[in-house]
Amino acid sequence: MEGDPLSALCSPAFVVDVDKAKRNAQRMIERCQKLGVQLRPHMKTHKTLECADIMTGGSQRCIVVSTLAEACFYADHGYDDILYAYSIPFDKVERCAALSERLDLFQILLDHPDALEQLRKRPLKDGRQWHVWLKLDCGNGRAGVLHSEPGALKLAEAIAKTEGVELTGVYAHCGNTYYCTGVEQIQAVAQETTKLTLQFMEKLRAGGITCKSSIGSTPSCSHPVKDMAQLSEVHPGNYVFYDVQQSMIGSCCMEDVAVRVLTRVIGHCPHRNQLLIDCGWAGISLDGAGKLPTGYAVIEGHPNLKLLSMTQEHGRVEPISGQLDYSKYPLGSLLTLIPYHSCATAVMHPVYHVHSKGRLVGKWTPTRGW
Amino acid sequence: MEGDPLSALCSPAFVVDVDKAKRNAQRMIERCQKLGVQLRPHMKTHKTLECADIMTGGSQRCIVVSTLAEACFYADHGYDDILYAYSIPFDKVERCAALSERLDLFQILLDHPDALEQLRKRPLKDGRQWHVWLKLDCGNGRAGVLHSEPGALKLAEAIAKTEGVELTGVYAHCGNTYYCTGVEQIQAVAQETTKLTLQFMEKLRAGGITCKSSIGSTPSCSHPVKDMAQLSEVHPGNYVFYDVQQSMIGSCCMEDVAVRVLTRVIGHCPHRNQLLIDCGWAGISLDGAGKLPTGYAVIEGHPNLKLLSMTQEHGRVEPISGQLDYSKYPLGSLLTLIPYHSCATAVMHPVYHVHSKGRLVGKWTPTRGW
Repeated sequence: MEGDPLSALCSPAFVVDVDKAKRNAQRMIERCQKLGVQLRPHMKTHKTLECADIMTGGSQRCIVVSTLAEACFYADHGYDDILYAYSIPFDKVERCAALSERLDLFQILLDHPDALEQLRKRPLKDGRQWHVWLKLDCGNGRAGVLHSEPGALKLAEAIAKTEGVELTGVYAHCGNTYYCTGVEQIQAVAQETTKLTLQFMEKLRAGGITCKSSIGSTPSCSHPVKDMAQLSEVHPGNYVFYDVQQSMIGSCCMEDVAVRVLTRVIGHCPHRNQLLIDCGWAGISLDGAGKLPTGYAVIEGHPNLKLLSMTQEHGRVEPISGQLDYSKYPLGSLLTLIPYHSCATAVMHPVYHVHSKGRLVGKWTPTRGW
Repeated sequence: MEGDPLSALCSPAFVVDVDKAKRNAQRMIERCQKLGVQLRPHMKTHKTLECADIMTGGSQRCIVVSTLAEACFYADHGYDDILYAYSIPFDKVERCAALSERLDLFQILLDHPDALEQLRKRPLKDGRQWHVWLKLDCGNGRAGVLHSEPGALKLAEAIAKTEGVELTGVYAHCGNTYYCTGVEQIQAVAQETTKLTLQFMEKLRAGGITCKSSIGSTPSCSHPVKDMAQLSEVHPGNYVFYDVQQSMIGSCCMEDVAVRVLTRVIGHCPHRNQLLIDCGWAGISLDGAGKLPTGYAVIEGHPNLKLLSMTQEHGRVEPISGQLDYSKYPLGSLLTLIPYHSCATAVMHPVYHVHSKGRLVGKWTPTRGW
C-alpha cells in the first residue's frame, strides 16, 4: 500500500529508490547535455514505462531496446524513435517491418550482408525506408562487424546504396568497459572505441557517406571522454539503477545504487554457523558468482555476512569470520541485498516496488519475453 | 499457431514436449502406485495449471508448492490439498491463514518454535486447525531441524499439543541426492533419508503421536528404495521435465528430457572461431556454470559445440575442437539447447510453447513472484 514502509512488503521483493533512479537519470541527461551529445537511453535493465519516462525526461522519444518485446511494449504505449539494437534476427523481420510501417521512426541494426538481403526481400509499404544502423565491433568482442575488416566499410556502403534502406548510423557497444577498474581504464576504452568509430566515420565520409554515430555502455557514459562530443549519440542503460558491479568498475559509488532485494531470515542453522534467507536464485539471479567476498550480493549494513550459496528459493548466509550471533538475526527479520548485477536481478521479478525515502509510492511492471 | 512446426516460433523460446512430460508424469504415478505410497507432485519447476493437471492425473488435489504465489494461483483455479513446503515466513502468516480458512486442506511447514508461536497468535476461524508439517533435515543441509537434535522431537510434540494446530506430518527433502552420480549413490541417500525419517516417526509413536511422513527429490523418487513404501507420501517435482543435470545424476536418460530452448544463429565471428546465438542468460539462466564440457547447456545434435559465455541476450558458441564450418550454421538457422537445470530455465520464460511430435499444440503460462 502506498505510504507503507518497506517492511510492509512480503519478501523477496525488488525495490527501487525512485529518488536515486531520478538522480542517476538526471545526471546522465546533464552529462550528455554538457558534452553536447544526444542521449538514447537503453531500456533493457528495467523494461518499464515509468523508468523510461524518467530516463527520457518525459519525452518518450529516442530510446534503445534489447528485445522486440520491449520495442512493441514501448510502441504500444506512445513511445517512438525506438532503436532495436540487436543484429536483426531473421525470424523477426516481419515484426520489425510492421513496427517500421507503424512508427514515425523505428530503427534496426545489422552486421552481415545476409541481413541486408533479408531487408531487400521485404520492402516497406508506402515508400518507407528501413532505418539501419551498422553494428561495429571496436574491441567489445560480441556482435558487430570488426572495425578493421574491409567488409565493414563495404557493408556500410551496401546499406547506403540499397533501395528502400537508409544507413542511419554506426553503432558500437563498448561492453569491454566491464573489464575495467577505475576511471582511467574506463576512459581508455571509451577513448579507443570513440577513436575507432570516428575513424570509421571518416572513411565513410571519404566515400561520400554521412550518417550518425553512437557508442555506449554505462561505465563509458558515466565518465565520458571529450572526444565523445564528436559522436551523434550515446546509449547507456544500466546507470539508472547501477549495482555492485558498476561500483567495482568505478562507474558509480555504492550510494548511487538505486535497487535492492528485500529478504527475511527464515532459518537458523547453528550446527553449520549459517542463516537461511527467503531469497534464492529466483530472487537475485546467479550473476556475480565468485566475484564478491560477500558472495552473490552485498548484504547492506552487514559487511561480515556472505551470501554463500542458493537454491531456487533459499539462500545460505554465513559470517566471513567468527560465529553468528543469532540474537541479531531473529526469524522474520529483514536483510537487504544489493545486487551484483541489477539487469540480472530485475529480470527475475514480475513487479518492482518503488519507494521514496523508505515509503512505498507505487509499483512498476516490466515487460518480459522476446 | 497450433499445428505449426517449432521452427515457426520466434526465438529464444522455451518448448515442452507434452508427450514426454506426460510419459514422465505417468511413470512417476505408476512407480508410486506400485510402491504403495501417495505421490504429492511439486509444482515449482513449471508453475502452470496444465502441467499440474498432468502431474495430478487430473485430480487437482495433493500438490506441493514452493511459493505462496503458487499456492494462491492453484487455489484460485480449483486446486485443493496444497502443501506450502517452505518454512513458514513470518510476513506471510496472514496470507497462509486466509488460505487455511478458504481451502479444504491447506498445509504449511515449520522448523522452529518461533514459527509455532506465530500460529498460536493467529488462531484460525470457524474452529479450523492449522495443518502443520515439521521440516526435518536428514542430511540435506538446507532448511529443517536436524533429525539428531533433541529439539526436533520436542518441536513435534509441541506442535501436536498446541491448540488449534495439528501435526500433519514430518517432511524431509533429500536434495543431497543432487550430489550423487548413478542409481547406487541415489538409493543410498534415499535409504538413509527414509531410515532417519522412519526412526523419527518411531520416536514420535513411542510418545503417542502419529502423523504422516514424506520425503522427496526427483533422483530419489525416480529410483525409490523399498523402504519408501513405509512413508505416507513422496514429493518430487523436476521429473516432469527432467534436464541435463538429472541425466548426469542418473535420474533419467537424455531422451526423457521434455524441455528445450530454441535459439537461432545471429552472428558469425570467424576471427574468434565463434557463433553468436540469440539466447543469453535471460533465456537459459546461468545455472550449470562449469558443470558441462559443452558449457551452459547441451546443444542438441552438435556434440562439438560449446555454449561458452553469455550476456543478457547473446550467447557465444565455439567448437570444443577444430574450426567452425560456418556453412553449416547460416544466419537464422535454428539450434536447440537442452537446459542444464530446467527449473532455472523455465523461470526465465513468461510462456512455454507446447508441442507434440514437433507440432505446436498450445501455450502454458506460469505464475511468477512470491
